[in-house]
Amino acid sequence: MNVTLSATLAANEDIERRRRAGERVLHLAFGEAGLPVHPALRERLVAASGHNGYGPVAGAAELREAAAGYWHRRGLPTDPDLVVCGPGSKSLLYGLLLAIGGDVVLPMPSWVSYAAQADLVGARPLLVPAPPGEGGVPDPEQVASTVLHARSQGRDVRSILLTLPDNPTGTLASAATVSRLAEISRDLDLMIISDEIYRDLLHDPATRFAGPAEFAPERTVITSGLSKSLALGGWRIGVARLPFAVLRDRLLAVASEIWSSPASPVQQAAAYAYTEPAEVIERIDLSRRLHGAVVRAVRERFVQAGVRVDAPLGGFYLYPDFTGHAFATSAELAAALLDEHGVGVLPGHVFGDDGKALRVRVATSLLYGETTERRLAALNASDPLELPWISASLDHLSEALTGLNRMRPAPGRHRHSGVVPAPVTG
Amino acid sequence: MNVTLSATLAANEDIERRRRAGERVLHLAFGEAGLPVHPALRERLVAASGHNGYGPVAGAAELREAAAGYWHRRGLPTDPDLVVCGPGSKSLLYGLLLAIGGDVVLPMPSWVSYAAQADLVGARPLLVPAPPGEGGVPDPEQVASTVLHARSQGRDVRSILLTLPDNPTGTLASAATVSRLAEISRDLDLMIISDEIYRDLLHDPATRFAGPAEFAPERTVITSGLSKSLALGGWRIGVARLPFAVLRDRLLAVASEIWSSPASPVQQAAAYAYTEPAEVIERIDLSRRLHGAVVRAVRERFVQAGVRVDAPLGGFYLYPDFTGHAFATSAELAAALLDEHGVGVLPGHVFGDDGKALRVRVATSLLYGETTERRLAALNASDPLELPWISASLDHLSEALTGLNRMRPAPGRHRHSGVVPAPVTG
Repeated sequence: MNVTLSATLAANEDIERRRRAGERVLHLAFGEAGLPVHPALRERLVAASGHNGYGPVAGAAELREAAAGYWHRRGLPTDPDLVVCGPGSKSLLYGLLLAIGGDVVLPMPSWVSYAAQADLVGARPLLVPAPPGEGGVPDPEQVASTVLHARSQGRDVRSILLTLPDNPTGTLASAATVSRLAEISRDLDLMIISDEIYRDLLHDPATRFAGPAEFAPERTVITSGLSKSLALGGWRIGVARLPFAVLRDRLLAVASEIWSSPASPVQQAAAYAYTEPAEVIERIDLSRRLHGAVVRAVRERFVQAGVRVDAPLGGFYLYPDFTGHAFATSAELAAALLDEHGVGVLPGHVFGDDGKALRVRVATSLLYGETTERRLAALNASDPLELPWISASLDHLSEALTGLNRMRPAPGRHRHSGVVPAPVTG
Repeated sequence: MNVTLSATLAANEDIERRRRAGERVLHLAFGEAGLPVHPALRERLVAASGHNGYGPVAGAAELREAAAGYWHRRGLPTDPDLVVCGPGSKSLLYGLLLAIGGDVVLPMPSWVSYAAQADLVGARPLLVPAPPGEGGVPDPEQVASTVLHARSQGRDVRSILLTLPDNPTGTLASAATVSRLAEISRDLDLMIISDEIYRDLLHDPATRFAGPAEFAPERTVITSGLSKSLALGGWRIGVARLPFAVLRDRLLAVASEIWSSPASPVQQAAAYAYTEPAEVIERIDLSRRLHGAVVRAVRERFVQAGVRVDAPLGGFYLYPDFTGHAFATSAELAAALLDEHGVGVLPGHVFGDDGKALRVRVATSLLYGETTERRLAALNASDPLELPWISASLDHLSEALTGLNRMRPAPGRHRHSGVVPAPVTG
């Protein structure tokens, strides 16, 4: 085992420590949704506070039925018996890697925990670059050649993992790409794990969302949860939609030996949320609007500073590329941003990216404020960018980027000899 | 991976199904504490229902400090920084097996999930019989010879797991045995994992509890939780006390990639419980008294029917031995009890016991009633055995055991030829 504390969680704890010590740090390193619990969900938790039985490993019937309805309304008829709930979609993803077995193809870059989980279950991830502008999926043709090559070397590759929309890039793979990946997965007999935890946070509800379950339902597992869309990260609730009973049974076997089930009162609140009553839909609409407005404004600051960054379509992440800056690695760049400019981001290498490519992940959801009052104000503001604490953070970022630019060498000159910036690929 | 749904959870789901189908089944197969949540804990959960941040992987500071105090009051000064909380002690045990690595020595019989978890992490358990009358620990001298032999075969044995007091036998290892095991663990450089989740349910508070942390603090991890003492199984909360920071860091690395943290509102309620206010102590006292009264009464019914069973000292389990009955395996015996006599128990083989030994595990905590009212009545009764639903269940059991005895062959004659009952060892 060669695993350290999850990079995102470690960065969060580091920044919290610095802030307690009085440092002024702009917290752009952690994917917490940064919004309060909707009162209706608190009420459901309170009403279920007497629920203390273990309950079914797959999750309470109400929750599985509600989650099935959620998918049904998205064009995916779902048998509640093929829904498995867990304490966060993270645990479900871990359980799936264990239940499916073999090696897994991951997009590069991709969320920090996928590769770490693969390592924990004794699998080796095959990292395949995402196509330009389409983060969260590995390039389909490269998947085919990579898997065939790995198999010719005796490796047992069994699955491929997608993130739609993507963390870390905030982009969304096109229907054509996902459809092609589904086709290749069928040809190569790969299971597809589709992490759709940001699906309901696509900024524009009219954006076409094409998941692999649309093209290869027989082999696609979807994972989701309420950590992002309803900001319930600390409640630990995730759901998985399984394509067939054998895999469900294997996942349940793993779940029953590792975590048993999600916390029972939380399951009841989640069951309510997944029925998607008007108040919950309205809350998600407001959240999506806020995430979109702020992440686009942050992107604008990067663009103004001459930093390339893809336009985000969902969630609250950006993946800017500082090619041309005088750093040898993304780790050095991230360290300089934190230590010299008080801006906490995560270096691209923790997402499996080439460490010499100067890309970092920027999470914008902790800009809404540190109190419930400020967060609610941001949620309900007609223009959240006018809120003084948000505009101050944006200005802090611009200053940091200007400061970083002052350290930028003339073209052709690099502070670290021998290091050539990697080409921009995403 | 060769794992099926946890035997206890599967048995529970099977019995619930049979009951819904109208079958009359005495539910003695599941280790759920069978009591309501204390109102003060519900209040704390309600007060924390707005807590939705991820929080530290190790658990909230309040909870770690309260757990440290809990151990301090039991003679084990504890650094809150060496406490790690998880969604149930089950997840912590899994994480520890992964973090420690190598193979693990287990007592035989022992809780179903230890061996299953070892299998999931790719370890092979070494099963060593418990000494007569002292379940939950492997016989110390046999541990030494087994580990030395396994190492001579190239196996990497790194840890030993104890349950104090024990599930499935309800017994408690003596201080002399635990001390000798600690000594052997030091000689062989084995980590000790001490599962003490039933510690506060020793029926007689004057019983001497000797845990390995008393004798080998430098190598002992203690796991515990509130599932049993406060009946919070469905809330998923466990705590671990680590002996040193390197192991803590490895456990946190695993935790951060699999489950992140326990549900945040639950952590706040647990923090209150671990401060052990008077109302919580009183609730645990009442629970311990009820568990003791009922498990002893159930034992009496087995003894009356001529079945050997060790006297329980803690928790709500018995491990009767039906040697002399005409069954080839404990699975056949358990199936006959369920199908012909409406009594659900778990066969000893799922606890790693010899399948031909006619031992089963009996859990008595679901006899208190199926409604909150009945459970509270049982908790507060001066004599819970006089409650009609409890005495009816005891009579159901006696009838079943009488019926089973009628099927008993004359001495020397066995229904299944060639099968010799295993000697009684526990």
